[in-house]
Amino acid sequence: MKKPLILVVNDDGISAKGIRALIRIMNDFGDVVVVAPDSPQSGKGHAITIESNIRCEKVVIDTGPQKEYACSGTPVDCVKLAVNQILESKPDLCVSGINHGSNSSINVIYSGTMAAAVEGALEEIPSVGFSLLDSAYNADFSESEPYIRKIIKGVLNNGLDSGVCLNVNIPKRVENKDLRGIKVCRQANGNWEEEFEKRTDPKGKSYYWLTGKFTNYDEGKDTDEWALANHYVSVVPVQFDVTAYSSLLSIKKLLLDE
Amino acid sequence: MKKPLILVVNDDGISAKGIRALIRIMNDFGDVVVVAPDSPQSGKGHAITIESNIRCEKVVIDTGPQKEYACSGTPVDCVKLAVNQILESKPDLCVSGINHGSNSSINVIYSGTMAAAVEGALEEIPSVGFSLLDSAYNADFSESEPYIRKIIKGVLNNGLDSGVCLNVNIPKRVENKDLRGIKVCRQANGNWEEEFEKRTDPKGKSYYWLTGKFTNYDEGKDTDEWALANHYVSVVPVQFDVTAYSSLLSIKKLLLDE
Repeated sequence: MKKPLILVVNDDGISAKGIRALIRIMNDFGDVVVVAPDSPQSGKGHAITIESNIRCEKVVIDTGPQKEYACSGTPVDCVKLAVNQILESKPDLCVSGINHGSNSSINVIYSGTMAAAVEGALEEIPSVGFSLLDSAYNADFSESEPYIRKIIKGVLNNGLDSGVCLNVNIPKRVENKDLRGIKVCRQANGNWEEEFEKRTDPKGKSYYWLTGKFTNYDEGKDTDEWALANHYVSVVPVQFDVTAYSSLLSIKKLLLDE
Repeated sequence: MKKPLILVVNDDGISAKGIRALIRIMNDFGDVVVVAPDSPQSGKGHAITIESNIRCEKVVIDTGPQKEYACSGTPVDCVKLAVNQILESKPDLCVSGINHGSNSSINVIYSGTMAAAVEGALEEIPSVGFSLLDSAYNADFSESEPYIRKIIKGVLNNGLDSGVCLNVNIPKRVENKDLRGIKVCRQANGNWEEEFEKRTDPKGKSYYWLTGKFTNYDEGKDTDEWALANHYVSVVPVQFDVTAYSSLLSIKKLLLDE
């Protein structure tokens, strides 16, 4: 049987510990090609590079059978370039991550990791984004591995609905407390309360740093935030049709009845 | 009666013709504060600036009662900075655009213009993104004006559902052919077929330019693509809950039944 062709991407950059862990796992499932940013691209959302050009070079980062390419663009650029220029055939699977930090709740729309998975789904490739709730450079991904294997097996065997990818978040490792399993969830209703930090540069001009605190407004037990707080791995199916179908009628009334 | 406070943003940059047209219209509806990028930010999606700092300065671009701030960040940064640092109270309305070029169908997820409107909705501000299907620097926005006024009146009088903003696209002006009205639509199922252009720099190293052609796969007459092709203004309600609710059950089976 032909081995599946697997595209691996991320947003923390090609040398991040999280993508290294994901590549090692994926090498057991198929032929791996990595096309990942040459520098950190966190918070880039679904950005693409249109005002400047993109560089992409074959690289060797560590041992293993995978082929690797470092790309100057965003995570979404990496997927587009992989599919249209680098890969000889359409991949059977696209995996993104493992992100250093959470992409649960509203973070999904800011996330370069998840944008890459969404772009894979747009290309009709079964796609999964993985994130660990630990943004440390040296985060411990060992506990994630059996869950990633289980999810990848399920997706390779059964595929995913057209137009849908998976947003998988994994709680941070806690000593003497095992993960309790997988919960399939909806995206919790939460948001960031921003507090910009205003500073003054050596020339006396002001500048800002974006900071803030995430708040979960959602008390539902069917959400990713609930699952993660209760030490489950959360899996949210994500779509790129952003039409608010339940508002179609009220908007029609608002605009057409006047 | 107190005049509404209106935040105006865009992704083409604060001096673009489209935002100038929108500011002139909005000055008739309330007190306008402009917080817009100091350079073009097309295709930036929902990107935020977290690895570097943000500059924001009061500027005067043209005449009119509006207050204006040019920001070094993305369209989403502009909305966050406006709400958290610049405005003294929460705006009653957030409008983004008028974009030079279409944000219909899948373009909504790449669009900085629409990301700003989505960010407004996240902040519980009634928000609308406007785009004209003409990417020319000198595009003619005159025909858009009555439709923008009608939509703004409806939104100011009635508000919008929580978690929902509007994606308004306006056909390009065609001589001797008037717009036929407004259609409230769903997002058409379409995608870009990319063709990267590979070039060689003067030092012999290769680089790429992202190019491509948008294709509409959707034959529905209830879509934004249909409306625009038939010379209607399209209005799509857009949400930031990207959960694929219709796939929850199949994903549960896939992951939990093994």
